[in-house]
Amino acid sequence: MNTIKVNYNNMLSRVLGSQGITDKQIESIVPALQQARLNVENNRGQGMQGWMDSPYNQDKAVQDILKTAKDVQSRCDAFVVLGIGGSALGATALFNAFKHLYYNELPRKTRKYPRLYVIDNVDPERMNALFDVIDVENTVFNVITKSGSTSETMSQYLIITDILERKLGAKAKDNIIATTSASKGNLIKLAKEKGYTTFYIDEGVGGRFSVLSPVGLLPAAVIGIDIAKLLEGAREMDEKCKNAEVMQNPALVSAGLQYIAMKQGKNISVMMPYADSLKYFADWYAQLWAESLGKEVDKNGKLVNAGQTPVKALGVTDQHSQVQLYNEGPFDKVITFIEVKNFRSDVTIPNGCKEYPNVNFLCGHSLSELINNELFATRYNLTRRGRMNYTIEMDEINECNIGALIELLQLQTAYAGELLNIDAYNQPGVEGGKDATYALFGRVGYEDKAAEMEKAPADDNNYII
Amino acid sequence: MNTIKVNYNNMLSRVLGSQGITDKQIESIVPALQQARLNVENNRGQGMQGWMDSPYNQDKAVQDILKTAKDVQSRCDAFVVLGIGGSALGATALFNAFKHLYYNELPRKTRKYPRLYVIDNVDPERMNALFDVIDVENTVFNVITKSGSTSETMSQYLIITDILERKLGAKAKDNIIATTSASKGNLIKLAKEKGYTTFYIDEGVGGRFSVLSPVGLLPAAVIGIDIAKLLEGAREMDEKCKNAEVMQNPALVSAGLQYIAMKQGKNISVMMPYADSLKYFADWYAQLWAESLGKEVDKNGKLVNAGQTPVKALGVTDQHSQVQLYNEGPFDKVITFIEVKNFRSDVTIPNGCKEYPNVNFLCGHSLSELINNELFATRYNLTRRGRMNYTIEMDEINECNIGALIELLQLQTAYAGELLNIDAYNQPGVEGGKDATYALFGRVGYEDKAAEMEKAPADDNNYII
Repeated sequence: MNTIKVNYNNMLSRVLGSQGITDKQIESIVPALQQARLNVENNRGQGMQGWMDSPYNQDKAVQDILKTAKDVQSRCDAFVVLGIGGSALGATALFNAFKHLYYNELPRKTRKYPRLYVIDNVDPERMNALFDVIDVENTVFNVITKSGSTSETMSQYLIITDILERKLGAKAKDNIIATTSASKGNLIKLAKEKGYTTFYIDEGVGGRFSVLSPVGLLPAAVIGIDIAKLLEGAREMDEKCKNAEVMQNPALVSAGLQYIAMKQGKNISVMMPYADSLKYFADWYAQLWAESLGKEVDKNGKLVNAGQTPVKALGVTDQHSQVQLYNEGPFDKVITFIEVKNFRSDVTIPNGCKEYPNVNFLCGHSLSELINNELFATRYNLTRRGRMNYTIEMDEINECNIGALIELLQLQTAYAGELLNIDAYNQPGVEGGKDATYALFGRVGYEDKAAEMEKAPADDNNYII
Repeated sequence: MNTIKVNYNNMLSRVLGSQGITDKQIESIVPALQQARLNVENNRGQGMQGWMDSPYNQDKAVQDILKTAKDVQSRCDAFVVLGIGGSALGATALFNAFKHLYYNELPRKTRKYPRLYVIDNVDPERMNALFDVIDVENTVFNVITKSGSTSETMSQYLIITDILERKLGAKAKDNIIATTSASKGNLIKLAKEKGYTTFYIDEGVGGRFSVLSPVGLLPAAVIGIDIAKLLEGAREMDEKCKNAEVMQNPALVSAGLQYIAMKQGKNISVMMPYADSLKYFADWYAQLWAESLGKEVDKNGKLVNAGQTPVKALGVTDQHSQVQLYNEGPFDKVITFIEVKNFRSDVTIPNGCKEYPNVNFLCGHSLSELINNELFATRYNLTRRGRMNYTIEMDEINECNIGALIELLQLQTAYAGELLNIDAYNQPGVEGGKDATYALFGRVGYEDKAAEMEKAPADDNNYII
């Protein structure tokens, strides 16, 4: 049973005063919240809302994943994800949440499972660095791209396949697993032709909603994360969010409060977990929130330039970097804290500073008390200064809670998309950049784009200093 | 000689159209820019502007650092920085910029220098994880806190000292190096009492401006970074920015453009390097910019709630996460690209997709071409959509360039502080949080704060779901 709670007291005028959201403001959006929930619910499993079925329809997929994971564990020392964006962020978040913080540095005996590397960039130095720490022959590469045409991932795939085939010949296929569309694109064709083990991404599951599909689940299973429990937690949260009593639906309330905040000019959404193990969870959320809501036009084609910019922070670390700004800067953000009540290990601060009262007060306490007292104090101070914040609490980091947290934020994003009346599932804004890249490489069919770029104002040296 | 250039064509209306900054707007702030430069220059080395002397006054410190670094290299396998905020971010940025991207996983023979860990949080799981990968007896701990009362760092110090003293007795002192104020605080007293090797932070060098002091230079030297070249690059940039012709001063122009952008409602500053090795440079900048400019009142005590929120992004990775929002969302940000023309290694994308034209166009090209073409294309598309951006270019990542880049951004921050007429060197907004932490721990002298917190509105369960 998950223990995820959303505490939104500090969003409200009863606590925040004039900077807070009033009961009246909340009441005024209740019909919109009801409609948003209905819209999302009515499209469950339809179109690009296939992700809503992920917690329910993967019994067979989970069995296949566990079988493959076991095989991979038995025969390789490293597992490498080749993917970018939604094909990488989920695996990284899960890896960070559940495994030792220096996992890849541990001996195999201690870590039990293969090392995991998520290669989500095409920086050549990163690629070469990877080759220095893995033995490609003892590595399984999980190539993840739904379309099979993601330039970054397919470049990595070509580099890896070339090396593997030169070293292993026909056996190279055993070191590659493809996660892709079952029916469309290059990668499924290549997979069939070459005989790769393959996992499928449903057409209705977009990259940023794919962490609970084989995209995130296979890498998680390979390093020993209990993926069935992740899905169980997600189901629990989904059931909770079926509640038609909108103010009892945590994802809907969060979406509503963020929506009101956006309308009041809060164009920044900070996610600040107080746990090193959730640092990359904030990265996963940043994509989900940014790419889903950042849209030029609404569903009616009206120019809206919607969206709220996610900022990733980490407690307590960023108290010494960002919190000065959060306390004193513009009233332009909502801060989402993630609080973990119990850590999986602890350390006591010993004596040794009796003569120094401004340090001695810490002695005898534990680091978990310190980190959580600092969260309490930082939140108290921000609240006293009228800064909107809310807290997602959990008793501990376990698969059930993280599954529930993922579903909470996915649903919140879907609801927010409805409130903003935008398509939360497309990404038309990046097409222009892709086309320009194709033009730069002289790809056939992009001659017009190349010509357009030729005509663009060139860099004027007067403005380069 | 550094090759840092600022290309700000894409900030200007001549390129961006109606979203851009006009010549008239620039002309109108020239007197303010002149004054800002004069104010900064006139206070060089004074008050909290001691950092401006760092590139010039450290010949002796550099010698001492190199001597200590050599000693540390000869007798330990791991070097651990205990620090937070400005005491950690600089070392992490330099480590990331110059060393192998999986440095700590390499055998000693390959990496040549000790492993480096920067422990900038009090998460107990992180602390325990560290103990699993280091042998404390063969580790040197660099405790960095200017005040000697930073709770996080001093807690870490107490934990480490306790272990070391139990294991090594009187010899424990050899495994600790203190970097702190020469005259004030607990740590200098403890250092003298215990006999630690000590490096000093000048009173006029605040945490976020300390990367070019022993705070950043000692860890850098231990892992073999050429710290003299870092300072040389910083000197070159500083000299360039002494130019009274304001439009020839890159730090001043950048500050001015950001200032105009802020006045136009751009409350977000994205830093997006296109190089994995500069990912943590964006973290260092985020503190510098956020904590320096995020201020409630100006120098006259007037309420201003100034500041611009830094966002850390990474190219090309975040094209698949954030760029949709940057292209289509609100016109609320300035994007600073960092472009590295030549990478330190490269990989060619081999053939293997002849039948798939939407992948085959990449074959025969290199990853460095791909990453830089994607930067070009992303920037082109953002510009075409009227999104403010500028680019800091360098030929390659080397110590001279990174030193120059650090100085550029420090000077830009100082100038921006003057333009906003705020104190760029204090952080009053975090004091309330510190006091609340003290009260929670029952520290003597904070009884009033504890009483105030008792009276604060408690969490109402109605608002926890």
